[in-house]
Amino acid sequence: MSLPAKSAELIESRARLLGPNVSTFYDEPLHLVRGEGVWLWDADGHKYLDCYNNVPHVGHCNPRVVEAICRQAATLNTHTRYLHDGILEYVEKLTGTMDAALDTAILTCTGSEANDIALRMAEGITGKRGIIATDATYHGNTSLVSQLSRSNVPTVGFGLDQFFRFVDAPDSYRNPDPDGTRFAETVAEQIQAHKASGVGFAALIICPYFLNEGFPNHPDGWLKPVAEVVRKAGGLLICDEVQSGFGRTGTHLWAHQKMGVVPDIMTLGKPMGNGHPVGGVVTRSEILATFRKGYRYFNTFGGNPVSCAAAMAVLEEIEDKKLLANAETVGEHARQRLGQLAEKHEVIGDVRGSGLIFGAEMVTDRNSKDPASDLTDRVINALRHRGIILSKLGRHKNALKIRPPMPFSIENADLLIDTLDDVLAETPLHR
Amino acid sequence: MSLPAKSAELIESRARLLGPNVSTFYDEPLHLVRGEGVWLWDADGHKYLDCYNNVPHVGHCNPRVVEAICRQAATLNTHTRYLHDGILEYVEKLTGTMDAALDTAILTCTGSEANDIALRMAEGITGKRGIIATDATYHGNTSLVSQLSRSNVPTVGFGLDQFFRFVDAPDSYRNPDPDGTRFAETVAEQIQAHKASGVGFAALIICPYFLNEGFPNHPDGWLKPVAEVVRKAGGLLICDEVQSGFGRTGTHLWAHQKMGVVPDIMTLGKPMGNGHPVGGVVTRSEILATFRKGYRYFNTFGGNPVSCAAAMAVLEEIEDKKLLANAETVGEHARQRLGQLAEKHEVIGDVRGSGLIFGAEMVTDRNSKDPASDLTDRVINALRHRGIILSKLGRHKNALKIRPPMPFSIENADLLIDTLDDVLAETPLHR
Repeated sequence: MSLPAKSAELIESRARLLGPNVSTFYDEPLHLVRGEGVWLWDADGHKYLDCYNNVPHVGHCNPRVVEAICRQAATLNTHTRYLHDGILEYVEKLTGTMDAALDTAILTCTGSEANDIALRMAEGITGKRGIIATDATYHGNTSLVSQLSRSNVPTVGFGLDQFFRFVDAPDSYRNPDPDGTRFAETVAEQIQAHKASGVGFAALIICPYFLNEGFPNHPDGWLKPVAEVVRKAGGLLICDEVQSGFGRTGTHLWAHQKMGVVPDIMTLGKPMGNGHPVGGVVTRSEILATFRKGYRYFNTFGGNPVSCAAAMAVLEEIEDKKLLANAETVGEHARQRLGQLAEKHEVIGDVRGSGLIFGAEMVTDRNSKDPASDLTDRVINALRHRGIILSKLGRHKNALKIRPPMPFSIENADLLIDTLDDVLAETPLHR
Repeated sequence: MSLPAKSAELIESRARLLGPNVSTFYDEPLHLVRGEGVWLWDADGHKYLDCYNNVPHVGHCNPRVVEAICRQAATLNTHTRYLHDGILEYVEKLTGTMDAALDTAILTCTGSEANDIALRMAEGITGKRGIIATDATYHGNTSLVSQLSRSNVPTVGFGLDQFFRFVDAPDSYRNPDPDGTRFAETVAEQIQAHKASGVGFAALIICPYFLNEGFPNHPDGWLKPVAEVVRKAGGLLICDEVQSGFGRTGTHLWAHQKMGVVPDIMTLGKPMGNGHPVGGVVTRSEILATFRKGYRYFNTFGGNPVSCAAAMAVLEEIEDKKLLANAETVGEHARQRLGQLAEKHEVIGDVRGSGLIFGAEMVTDRNSKDPASDLTDRVINALRHRGIILSKLGRHKNALKIRPPMPFSIENADLLIDTLDDVLAETPLHR
């Protein structure tokens, strides 16, 4: 198949105007022009079922969100140095969905900005700078938080890597830790290492459902042991819910609730405004007060009336359309059907997930669990040519990553699984 | 005057939900509910002439920008891992307005993110980390760039202050440096200090029109000597045009053009999307390539179709409505009239600016130049009660800062100056 002329032109312009190494998805990148609900269209009129994009959380071009943005953009858009209802109503509603201790917030434009603040809050309240994360995570792109990415290690960053230590990412398939005690022990070791080095221990930052780590299959409450270790050491637990929040896991609005802990700090981003740039940090009032005492943080666009209108519309849409329950039901159905596919297709080594974050690990051999990375890549590309968008992840890039907009239906799930069934049947293990 | 009940309620909610030290403007904060062009309305229906806000660059709720946002938000909003015309057309148009060497860009959500990248680009290409800025500047709120603020020094920030050295902000009124050679010398001293300390010299970051420093009155080309010093030392010149760009100074679209230099890196923010969260870094292709080789930066919302539509509408509106020429004409008229006021009101010590960034320094005595800080505060508050919004700045908080949306008219300027005339007449120097 050859690339459409227009796509080739756009690829050339990208290299010239945006520089090298600006990644695209797929061997032949998609040129998208329209989105609606769980559907996307490319420039040639091909229609795709979006099983991947989590930013359009309540659906591409969700009418309620679009209407909220248009209405507020046409009325007033200014900053938080003036009084406005929007930010207060939103923070009240947002913090109302979580533990009473998490009662204050700073709104930002991105999850990166939120995590950058969260680490400084931890520094502020503990007086230490040692941060711990997993070795397969991603927490954003500022100088500080970009150093938390082991898969995309920046060569620039003002030496900030000295403050970070890493633990093995949990892996329920290859290296089970059913009650989370081993994970807690590895964190305890790194806490000791931070203390021994003189840096001291400030915080553990994790996605409570470990989405970048391949959403390992853990029972509810699995984070309790590690939270205890962190608190005992005088550090903070930061839950990065940029991906896992807003009901993604189906059973709880926030994944930390599912995993049995109340974080000291929680950060938000991507789905928060359905694509409108808004992020946030939610924490206890004493942590926020200590941070703000040391630094009068201000963000020009953060918490502006349009961003708050978009974010409020997302929360309302989740409620009104019962998208949490939908994620649970549809996710459960899809995983059952994926499990049935595993009976037919030997390459499916493991099926896991919760709600509308789920997938399957592809292996060349179920006993050795050797990753079928090349096959996974071909499956993803073949699905794309059949109108199904999804992606892969994991240390070996051999896990299907399925994370559709939340209005994903049983019918959508069936189309995904049926197409995957066909593609697996016709894709040989080796080229 | 007592605060409206609703405002009192919002202030209480802010302290509870957003934490302490969230600044508002004015002794009695404004509760704004609507904006249009250069006008704002509060919850009680009072109308204000906005002589201060630069974020709504082409006017509050500019119809072209609102239409662009609504149209694109209803069509498609996704990220740069798919191909899309919007970002490429925008970057092509944007870089087309400046020196041919500045030909590539990264789009972000905020000016803070842009400056955070710019400093890492300088680190990447020089292999050094020493940054120089003025002691009265502001370049954003990330862990890294927040350390550049001397007026709001963060107590948290992972020790990054070790990489920053500061020079006295230029001050054409109290300490003239007509040809910029003294500024160049002070920068040269700090370059030597960075080298001597072993940190090395990476970059000078400045607003080319020194907006936060009180827009000192310098002739065009004033930055040439310092640029030469920076280049000779092997460092980069970063121009932060977050405030000074997009025609604010009236004579040039970019203030660095006015000041006679081509920066190695230029950063953009606030007015870029008229309030929609969008920022950017423009640089030479080899600097971008070196940065991206060392770090595959990705920003989920950066350069998304809606942000690019908003940013494109701003550039188009500046062109179509001839807002650059308008800024020059109206700014010139306003400064002439301010100069006439100075003949009547002894407290006006200095009138300066360019285009639609201008103001007057208020003094208790023209010989001693002692700052009339308290008077300035009372003038600002009195103007607010007469429906004129502006602010103050400077080391002594004694300069009127006038920086209206770009469609500001001669009539608007006359209303501002006439009202200021009345307020100065009835405001005693001492309480």
